[in-house]
This record gives sequence, structure tokens and C-alpha cells, in this order.
Amino acid sequence: MKRAIYPGSFDPLTNGHIDIARRALLVCDQLLIAISHNQEKSPLFKLEERKTMIEQAFYGDARVSVSYFSGLLVDFAAKIKAPIMIRGLRAASDFEYEFQLAAMNRSLNPDIDTVFFMTGSDSYFLSSRLVKEVALLGGDVTKMVPAHVAQALANKRPHNQIL
Amino acid sequence: MKRAIYPGSFDPLTNGHIDIARRALLVCDQLLIAISHNQEKSPLFKLEERKTMIEQAFYGDARVSVSYFSGLLVDFAAKIKAPIMIRGLRAASDFEYEFQLAAMNRSLNPDIDTVFFMTGSDSYFLSSRLVKEVALLGGDVTKMVPAHVAQALANKRPHNQIL
Amino acid sequence: MKRAIYPGSFDPLTNGHIDIARRALLVCDQLLIAISHNQEKSPLFKLEERKTMIEQAFYGDARVSVSYFSGLLVDFAAKIKAPIMIRGLRAASDFEYEFQLAAMNRSLNPDIDTVFFMTGSDSYFLSSRLVKEVALLGGDVTKMVPAHVAQALANKRPHNQIL
Amino acid sequence: MKRAIYPGSFDPLTNGHIDIARRALLVCDQLLIAISHNQEKSPLFKLEERKTMIEQAFYGDARVSVSYFSGLLVDFAAKIKAPIMIRGLRAASDFEYEFQLAAMNRSLNPDIDTVFFMTGSDSYFLSSRLVKEVALLGGDVTKMVPAHVAQALANKRPHNQIL
Amino acid sequence: MKRAIYPGSFDPLTNGHIDIARRALLVCDQLLIAISHNQEKSPLFKLEERKTMIEQAFYGDARVSVSYFSGLLVDFAAKIKAPIMIRGLRAASDFEYEFQLAAMNRSLNPDIDTVFFMTGSDSYFLSSRLVKEVALLGGDVTKMVPAHVAQALANKRPHNQIL
Amino acid sequence: MKRAIYPGSFDPLTNGHIDIARRALLVCDQLLIAISHNQEKSPLFKLEERKTMIEQAFYGDARVSVSYFSGLLVDFAAKIKAPIMIRGLRAASDFEYEFQLAAMNRSLNPDIDTVFFMTGSDSYFLSSRLVKEVALLGGDVTKMVPAHVAQALANKRPHNQIL
Repeated sequence: MKRAIYPGSFDPLTNGHIDIARRALLVCDQLLIAISHNQEKSPLFKLEERKTMIEQAFYGDARVSVSYFSGLLVDFAAKIKAPIMIRGLRAASDFEYEFQLAAMNRSLNPDIDTVFFMTGSDSYFLSSRLVKEVALLGGDVTKMVPAHVAQALANKRPHNQIL
Repeated sequence: MKRAIYPGSFDPLTNGHIDIARRALLVCDQLLIAISHNQEKSPLFKLEERKTMIEQAFYGDARVSVSYFSGLLVDFAAKIKAPIMIRGLRAASDFEYEFQLAAMNRSLNPDIDTVFFMTGSDSYFLSSRLVKEVALLGGDVTKMVPAHVAQALANKRPHNQIL
Repeated sequence: MKRAIYPGSFDPLTNGHIDIARRALLVCDQLLIAISHNQEKSPLFKLEERKTMIEQAFYGDARVSVSYFSGLLVDFAAKIKAPIMIRGLRAASDFEYEFQLAAMNRSLNPDIDTVFFMTGSDSYFLSSRLVKEVALLGGDVTKMVPAHVAQALANKRPHNQIL
Repeated sequence: MKRAIYPGSFDPLTNGHIDIARRALLVCDQLLIAISHNQEKSPLFKLEERKTMIEQAFYGDARVSVSYFSGLLVDFAAKIKAPIMIRGLRAASDFEYEFQLAAMNRSLNPDIDTVFFMTGSDSYFLSSRLVKEVALLGGDVTKMVPAHVAQALANKRPHNQIL
Repeated sequence: MKRAIYPGSFDPLTNGHIDIARRALLVCDQLLIAISHNQEKSPLFKLEERKTMIEQAFYGDARVSVSYFSGLLVDFAAKIKAPIMIRGLRAASDFEYEFQLAAMNRSLNPDIDTVFFMTGSDSYFLSSRLVKEVALLGGDVTKMVPAHVAQALANKRPHNQIL
Repeated sequence: MKRAIYPGSFDPLTNGHIDIARRALLVCDQLLIAISHNQEKSPLFKLEERKTMIEQAFYGDARVSVSYFSGLLVDFAAKIKAPIMIRGLRAASDFEYEFQLAAMNRSLNPDIDTVFFMTGSDSYFLSSRLVKEVALLGGDVTKMVPAHVAQALANKRPHNQIL
């Protein structure tokens, strides 16, 4: 049984993430979506909120589970015996960063490898950052995130927003 | 009569911006330079200062006007009935970000389109950020910005600067 | 009345080209699609075939006309009094080539400028070269080109093709 | 049992290809290395020579087999029931081409997906083209290809080469 | 006697920096490693710590010295009569930034020029930022930095780190 | 005395090449401009013509000499005891190719290193290929190449050219 890990901030989950996760099941039997616990960034959604959002999106699919991690990703992957890490690629600038990260990770632990999927043509312009920005400015993101995430984003929107 | 919008931070206006704005008049009859009101960034110049700087640079040209905007750019463009948005491209890294932004904007409002100009050979290395950095460190930016902007930058320079 | 020129090989016309041409009408009143007459390349379709294909795609739209050109594009643009040249951008690698070309063209004739549109999310992977390759190998390109172009491609397919 | 296909020209096989193929076994149980039969290019090695080279490199590993293909890759992958295609990424310029190719392939057959691995730090500068060029000019490629490929390259070197 | 300057933050020195500095001695007789004194960033190591680390790495090599600088780099280079500035290039994204910076610097002072080296294949994924991040999360960086820097990084690691 | 080699096709020499060569003298005492003898490409100018063009451009500068080379560049550099190779960088796409080439060359001979200069802002869009294309189509290239090269290009222009 092959186990893979799909790490990220998921602040919040987008349709792009869901697409990558579904396609990742092609190369593994169990997928753990691992939310990074980065103390430096100030996320819009709490870890627990993000975990619930992802669980709701994959509700009923026993192959997908959700967890947090802190520390080195390769150490976490080794601990849970997931030799495969999943990443999506959206653009050439993504590529370079991911290329360096993958090389660094293989240098830290050569038994863990990273596998990449290209984002689909309807989500290459989706990033959590951009979706958040649009949603907080009152834009319609219902085509970009699941319905429950769109609702959660709407709830975060300041009431006194003047557009 | 075609109306276009040229959005940006313009903190401060550079010769690169002026070049793009002049060339944008090729594809429109009226150009609105729209200064984004981004509360998160801490700009060097206030919105009013930036507006005055731009107005001074285009003084006497009735085709160019200056305004502020907050909220979603496509909503602002729709409100003022400007179906064309203007952006300059300096480098491949610009390109990728602008590519994603343009796709996002078309997804939000397919009636508004973005039109790009390549920066000229004497301004591809000009960015407001770099010009500010150079000016505050005492470098000569008179070839990079209009004279009144160079003066405004000099006024912002700390008196106790030791170079 | 603003006149623009959209140059290319169009060997053959794709839905990506049609999208760019339609959007180009936002910045001009008359669009001349100009097929380059490049003797060195060996095209799949003859100049006349390409011209007919494009005319058929824009049949009934008096704003769009089709022509050939040889020699320097800026000279042709000057001769027909079209100060605007239109180009589509698909990827960062396109960008760099187009950036150098636009700079070269402005150096040759500063009165002619190039205006860029980003390809839409459903055509960023479309290129005439790739479409030709897929069609000649028997792939289905009906979502990528107009019906009459798909038929023309099918006619070019060798009868003894073994896939 | 998961089956994957690793397509390419392999003219000739390099250590970079071998690295990608070995790592690909992480995401599949059977890997078919598929040599493309491209009539337009004039390869250095014949299809049969390339097949023998690869078989020799993976001799004794029952998970790896070698085959030819012509026609559309997605059709071949569908025929042999391999839903996973493997590709290596070396550089940002690779990325853009592969991004467009992967999008095209998913458009042609959404049941076949492409999975990418980043090349290792000792082979990011290896390409069959560069290795061939170096070998034919008398350079030492024994660190870049298996011993039997280095020998085959030496045999192709013209006797009257003056370096 | 040719004098060159190798500017940077060096927070901390990595093996990648050492490789570039050694190779820079090919084009100069004296190399001054110049630590930028950037008040805005909050570095991990103090200027003095960084200076000592570099001096220790080049101990005994009279051709290499270490200094601080603030203000414009080209002004500092001119003051110490070093017409050559050294920079390493790791990736295409580095390239674009460095391209703009080099153009800006030549515009500020055409007598000072920048000379670039490509990072070696074992350090293209090394950046001070990434090394710091890995080390603070408990990763082993002994292959990426000199021993005394690895020790200094270990000392910075919080005692209550839970990985 | 430091000796460097500046290799290329120089078909023909452009102002961009001259700029790089002049700046290369900052890091060496003797510069050998080495014209590659590539049998596969069909150049516009013969090796002898290219050599004469370059010699004329650097006439009177005893630090610059011109030569041909075939075979591996690193072998030629070693033979003439030039440990430094000079290359210009124009764009991110150049960068990637040069990055791989530099890594390959260091792998072939670690005693030879490549040093890069960024092209100036008035020549980043100049390439021999583009200049040739423009000149043969009757464009004015007198700002892009030395006068004697512009004349040589004009002589190559077909008499029956219809623009």
C-alpha cells in the first residue's frame, strides 16, 4: 500500500488543491493532506478551520485524511512512512522554487521523493493568496473554491468594507 | 470614445510609468491613471502626493486624468465604463504574475480585458521599489523619474543619512 | 479610426488566434490579419489556404480583413497606416522572444507599437505547431480549431498513417 | 498493479534518464520505457540500438520493460492500460513546454495523467543532445551515461575527427 | 592589481558563497567580501558574527578580506577602488533580478561592472534563507555550510523546539 | 597575465558582442575572441569574413586577438592556457542554456570557469540571428552593428528583394 503526503498551507483550500489531491490518488492508495503549522505567517483561517474545510471537501473518501505538521517535512514524511510527497506546479516561477525545495529535501532524506502534477487549465491562476484577496474585496470566488469555503471566506469579510 | 484605466501603486511615478501611459493613448481616447489604495502596504508617499505627482507629469494633456480606487479593480473599471486595463511588462517574472492576474480578472468580469505594453529599453530596470531604494541611499535618480518626483524623493531622504 | 495589424503564420488558424483577434477589436476599429510569407519554413498550408481559412472564420465581420506580407513587419504596418501591432502571449518563453522582438521593432520604427493580450485559460496550450502535430497523428482537434480547419487538417493526414 | 509509461527519444539513454526511471518505480509497479518513433528527426542511434541500450541498463529488473511507439502518446498509453506518464524536469524552459504538453494530453484524454520528477543535482545539465555533442567532439562522457552507452557513442565518432 | 567586491547579506555564509568567492579569485587579485548593513531586514546573525564567520572560512588566505557597507553599493565600490562586483547566479528568477540590478548599477556608475558566476551543481539549491529554515527546524546542514557555521546555527535553535 | 576566451559564432559581430568584449577586458589582460567552426549550421558569413570583421572592430587594441576553434571549447581553452571563458547574458532563456553549458564545461574541465556579463540596456534585444533577419529584409541595422558589418550585410542582400 503506497502512502503519499500532500503538504501545504491550504489557507484556504481551493479547487486547484482539490484537483491535485484527486489526481494524486493515481500514484498512491492513501493520501495524507498535511497542513503546515507555520508560526511566522499570520493565516486567515486557524489550523482547525483549515482541517475541517479539507475534511468536508473529501468527506466519504476513505483514502484521504488530513493532519497538521510542524518541523521538517521530510522528517514528518519519514515518521508516517509516506515516501511520496505531492506538489502542484502552476507556473515557471513555482517551478524554480519547487526545484530547489525538492533538491534540498532529497539532500536531507534521499528516501523521500517529490512527485509533481501540472495544474489544470482552469486553475493555473488560482492561488490561496489571490483567492483570499479577491474574496476579501467582495469578489465572487464560487467558481474557485468549494461552496463551504466560499461561505467561510464571506464570513471573514469586514462588514464595513467599502468597495 | 474608448476609455482605459492604468492601475498601479505609483509610489512614486517613474519614467517607465510615463512611457507606458503615453503609449497607452494609442489604444484609447481617455486614460485614467488609477492609484490603488492598499491599506496593508506602507507607502513612501501619501495617496494625495502620488496623485499630484502624476497630474503634474501629465499637466495640459486633457486625455489623462488621475484617480484613486479601492476594492476590486474590475469592479472599478466596470463602474467607470473603462473596458480596457493597461499594464506594462518588464521581465518574465512580471509576466507570470500578470498572466495569472489577467486570467483572474477575466474570470471575475469577462467584459474587461487587459492590454500589455513591453517597457522600453531604457526603463526595463526601473521599478518604483528600486528607484525609492536608490534615492533614499543618496543615488542620483534624475534620469529615472521626472524632476518634481526626484525632488520629492530627495525631501524624503533622512538628514542623518551616512553613506 | 484606429487600425491594427495582427501578424503571424496562422499555419493553421487556431481558436487561440480567433480569441486574440476578437479581443483585439477592443483596441481598434479595423483589424488586418497579416499572414507572413516566410520562404524558409515549409508550411503545411499554402498562403491562399490560410487566407481562406481565416476569412471563413471571420465571415460577416466587416471589421476584420486578411492579407499577406513579406519584408519587415514594421514597414508593412507603416505602409498600411496601422500603428498598432497585436500579439498574444502564452508563456514566459513567448514573453522573452516577444520582448526582444518588440524592442527591435520600436528601434526600427518608434511610431509603431506592439500591444499584447494574454491567451485565455482554455487556449494557453494551443499552438499551431502542436495542433498540427496532434492532427497529423490522428488526434481530435475539434475543440482547438474551427470546424473547417479541423476538416482541412484531416485532409492533410496521410492515408497510410499507422498509429 | 499500477502501470506507468516513460516516453522519450533516448538518443541515447543518459544517467539522467536512468535516475528518473528508478525514481518512477516509486509510483508504479511496472514501468514501460517507450521510445518515440519520430520520422522527422534524424537520430544518432537506430530504434533497435536505443532499445538494446535501455534493456542493458535495466537488465535483471523485471519491473522495467522497453518498447517503441508511434502516433499519439495518449493513445498508446490507453492501449497498454498505463494511466500514468512519467517525465523529468530539468529547467524552467523544460517546464513550460511540458506544461503545455501535459495540458494538451489531458485535453486529448483526461484519463491519462502526467507525473513529473525533478532531475537530481548531478544530472540537471545532462541532455541527450548535449551528451551527443560532447561525445562526438571527443569529450569524456563516462560520468554522464552508462559504460555501454559511452562505448556506443565512441564508436559513432568519426575517425578523422580533428580536435 | 585587480580588486573585486563580493556583496551580500551572508546571513549566514553557505558553501555556495565560499564556492563563488574562491572562483572569483580567478578574475581578481584581491577580493573584498562586503556584508550589507540593511536596517530593514531582521537578520539571524549580527554583522559582527557574520564577519567573523566569513573570516574564519577564509583564514590564511591573504587575498580575501571582509568588510561592512551601507549606502549604495556602487559608491562603496568606487570608494575602495574595486571596479568589479561579483555575484552568483542560481536560477532564472535570480537572473532577472540581477539583470535589473546590474543595469541599475551601470546606470548609476558606468565604471563599475558586475561579473557573474553560475553556482555549482551541488549548491544551486542552497540559499541562506533555506539553510536557516532547515537548521532552525533541526535539519542537518553540515553538507551545506562550514562546520563553524553549522555550530552557530545549532546555537540559535530554540531549546523548546518540538519537531 | 590573465588570458580569457570569448567564444561564439559571431555571424555577424554585433554591437552587443563588442560591448561584452570591451567589458571582458576588466577581468583579463588578453582576450581571444574565438569563432566556433560549426559544420552543421550554414552561416551567412565565412569564417574568414567573420574573423576580418572582428579584427577590424578591435583594430589597434593589442589586448584583443581573434581565432577559430573546432572541437570542445574547454579543450581549446586549456590548450591556449585561458582559464576564463566569457559569455554575455541577454535573457532568462539565455540563462538556462548557459547554466547547463557552464555546468557541463566545469564537469569536463574544472580548471576552466565561465564568467558572465549582462548585456547593456541598448543591446539586450540584439542577436546575430535577428540582426541578420532584419538586414536581409532591408531594415536599417546601422545602430546595431559596426559600419563595416552593416555594409557586409547590405552586400549579402538579394538584389531582387521585394519588400
